[in-house]
Amino acid sequence: MSDPGSGSDLDAVIDTISVIATKRDGGELSDAQIDWVIERYTAESGDVVADEQMSALLMAIFLRGMTRRETTRWTQAMIDSGRRMDFSGLRRAGRPLVTVDKHSTGGVGDKITLPLAPLVASFGVAVPQLSGRGLGHTGGTLDKLESIPGWRADVSSEEMVDQLERVGAVVCAAGGDLAPADRRLYALRDVTATVESIPLVASSIMSKKIAEGTGALVLDVKVGAGAFLKTLPEARELAETMVALGTAAGVRTRAVLTAMDTPLGHTAGNALEVTESLEVLAGGGPADVVELTVVLAREMLDAAGLPDADPARHLADGTAMDTWRAMIAAQGGDPDAPLPQARHTDTVAAEESGVLTGLDAMAVGVAAWRLGAGRAMPGQSVQAEAGVRMHAKPGDRVRTGDPLFTLYTQTPERFAAARAALASAVSVGQTPRAAAPLIIDRVTVEP
Amino acid sequence: MSDPGSGSDLDAVIDTISVIATKRDGGELSDAQIDWVIERYTAESGDVVADEQMSALLMAIFLRGMTRRETTRWTQAMIDSGRRMDFSGLRRAGRPLVTVDKHSTGGVGDKITLPLAPLVASFGVAVPQLSGRGLGHTGGTLDKLESIPGWRADVSSEEMVDQLERVGAVVCAAGGDLAPADRRLYALRDVTATVESIPLVASSIMSKKIAEGTGALVLDVKVGAGAFLKTLPEARELAETMVALGTAAGVRTRAVLTAMDTPLGHTAGNALEVTESLEVLAGGGPADVVELTVVLAREMLDAAGLPDADPARHLADGTAMDTWRAMIAAQGGDPDAPLPQARHTDTVAAEESGVLTGLDAMAVGVAAWRLGAGRAMPGQSVQAEAGVRMHAKPGDRVRTGDPLFTLYTQTPERFAAARAALASAVSVGQTPRAAAPLIIDRVTVEP
Repeated sequence: MSDPGSGSDLDAVIDTISVIATKRDGGELSDAQIDWVIERYTAESGDVVADEQMSALLMAIFLRGMTRRETTRWTQAMIDSGRRMDFSGLRRAGRPLVTVDKHSTGGVGDKITLPLAPLVASFGVAVPQLSGRGLGHTGGTLDKLESIPGWRADVSSEEMVDQLERVGAVVCAAGGDLAPADRRLYALRDVTATVESIPLVASSIMSKKIAEGTGALVLDVKVGAGAFLKTLPEARELAETMVALGTAAGVRTRAVLTAMDTPLGHTAGNALEVTESLEVLAGGGPADVVELTVVLAREMLDAAGLPDADPARHLADGTAMDTWRAMIAAQGGDPDAPLPQARHTDTVAAEESGVLTGLDAMAVGVAAWRLGAGRAMPGQSVQAEAGVRMHAKPGDRVRTGDPLFTLYTQTPERFAAARAALASAVSVGQTPRAAAPLIIDRVTVEP
Repeated sequence: MSDPGSGSDLDAVIDTISVIATKRDGGELSDAQIDWVIERYTAESGDVVADEQMSALLMAIFLRGMTRRETTRWTQAMIDSGRRMDFSGLRRAGRPLVTVDKHSTGGVGDKITLPLAPLVASFGVAVPQLSGRGLGHTGGTLDKLESIPGWRADVSSEEMVDQLERVGAVVCAAGGDLAPADRRLYALRDVTATVESIPLVASSIMSKKIAEGTGALVLDVKVGAGAFLKTLPEARELAETMVALGTAAGVRTRAVLTAMDTPLGHTAGNALEVTESLEVLAGGGPADVVELTVVLAREMLDAAGLPDADPARHLADGTAMDTWRAMIAAQGGDPDAPLPQARHTDTVAAEESGVLTGLDAMAVGVAAWRLGAGRAMPGQSVQAEAGVRMHAKPGDRVRTGDPLFTLYTQTPERFAAARAALASAVSVGQTPRAAAPLIIDRVTVEP
């Protein structure tokens, strides 16, 4: 009942039901409606928008979409629900520091932040990387770093500024005061089947990244069977939306579309991925991880005003590793401590000989999750030791009986579920196929 | 995260997110999904479906629809959430009593239940009329009857059976144990802009009516500017859906499509409508109220196996009035007590001369509501005395200065808001138009 029945002057007041009905009927929400509904959703008294009302609105948005203007305003309203950080005062040796950050939409084996943040920082750029924990089949950067003895994700704003000025890179948990509306909305979307909406995903990611105060931003938008977006047109639409949102908010933003059909590197899991990242920082490591790290580093350095920097050189000569060690130590971690190792391992062997033609990222992600590397619900703990090692990647030759996967866990009763997830993860053929490119496209401006 | 990550045997379990996602993506819900989601929504522990999840599902149903099969199962699941009454044991003078009920989808000035229930009962048929209170611009039957001194809406099951056997008609509040899932769903739909969905409206009405245990049912489906359905195709779809639901549940169900552009009768309000109903029971009253009462009575009596009964005769000869007096007295009411009268009245006069060509039901309903006859929120009290009297109906000649409306209230500060609602309620032309028919069509079987 939207008419309060107590006088016509109240007819002008925005009420929740009329906002929901507007979107339900395919209309465009006004700036005032968007500001009001986000502000009242985070308010604790007055005309409060209840969870059940917001979830109805989210489903209407999921099915009806939002225009670019609506998405921009929705993002700004979420930023305005909290604090916006400001790194414009960062200085090193008396000179201003440029900030640049990266965000990935999430993939299996995606440890790129670990080598990338210190690599970019090693060129004298500040990388304030606010990260999250994993949920479901994709791991979280903080979960991976927490497998390093002593390392802690919680860093105060003052510590963050100090670390950026001294070391250049910080990877830490986002404070609760950055876009708090997004945190509540994300938790709601997670239980109401309204996660996979391009305007909602774009505004969720960009509200946090803009509030974080970075000057430039590079987005790694994943597409493929192991990503949440399965098709290139959807991924391109998400990338274009996010680039537009960042640009509108004064952040130099660009996106790279990358393939996520096969896991990145040879490991999925927390300590396992730290080890693999150290190989990259030492100048080695899997070719795909190195390629993506270097491509993203070039984009970040270019966005930071260093178009001629050569990131591969800083991997080869140990400069990036020096920054890594300083970054880990600054947050209490011991870069020389041995990483935790799983008490129990199991091997999955090839059942036929030939050439590996497919390795399903989703299956590997679910297997690592079931072994204990991931969580089903926010707040659950994860096993640092758990995960999957892939002994063959697409294009490699395998023979019957060769090990395909090594499984790691502290809780061996989980092996059966992990093996079930991997049962059809691998395709073997007789003729090699041309490898699909990892880097699909760049998105730099709105079309 | 619908994969629990803890073993493949859990994949078979229905979870809320997968149910929402099925409907979101335009799929058809299985019987098991519908049963599970309704059962878990009313459950108080275990895998509970939360309000915010149900409201997302309701919005998906609003926008994606439900098939006839889904709607039938959804209705049955709501019935199964509570008790189903059984009147098959009713007897009078040792012979079984047939039961028949009527439901209207709601209109302005719709007092038809008041003369209709005793009229039908006066032919020896039992009328167990479970009714509701009003919300918004349409009044509730119980609110109207509660303007009779002493009358009470709360009747136990035993009292109901006794009154049906002795008097034949009972109009009372539905018990909390009839389709409790519907009561929770209705409250949720009301605040989430998911009311006006044909499958949800049909299942809401029919779950209560089927649970109420009537043997036959006549539906008065309103269409027009003052009804919740504005167009004939929508009204026909709702009528056909409800007739199919009733028939599938073993209730002899038919529907009448009737016009609701203009209010029924000359009054909208509680005591005002009781007075007008008494005129009909005394053999007089407004022609439209008499016409609809007689048409619906014929349908009910036909459905009860009395196709040759002549309801007009029982209005003319006082038989229906005798049953009314017994029905009111059985629930504590004094049929001879004077009805409450408003302390304050105001008059709206015609501003031009001519023929009344339109009288907007919604405007009159909102005016009566604002005067105090209705409520904006469940649980609010209403004024028995408040309402609107219409001195002219479409087709009547009016002259400048003639009274068009008399407004009644206990709270005269509300006159201004009521007058504002009525500002453009009336159209005056120079040539009379042919009156549109009140009874539009009948729906008796699924097409």
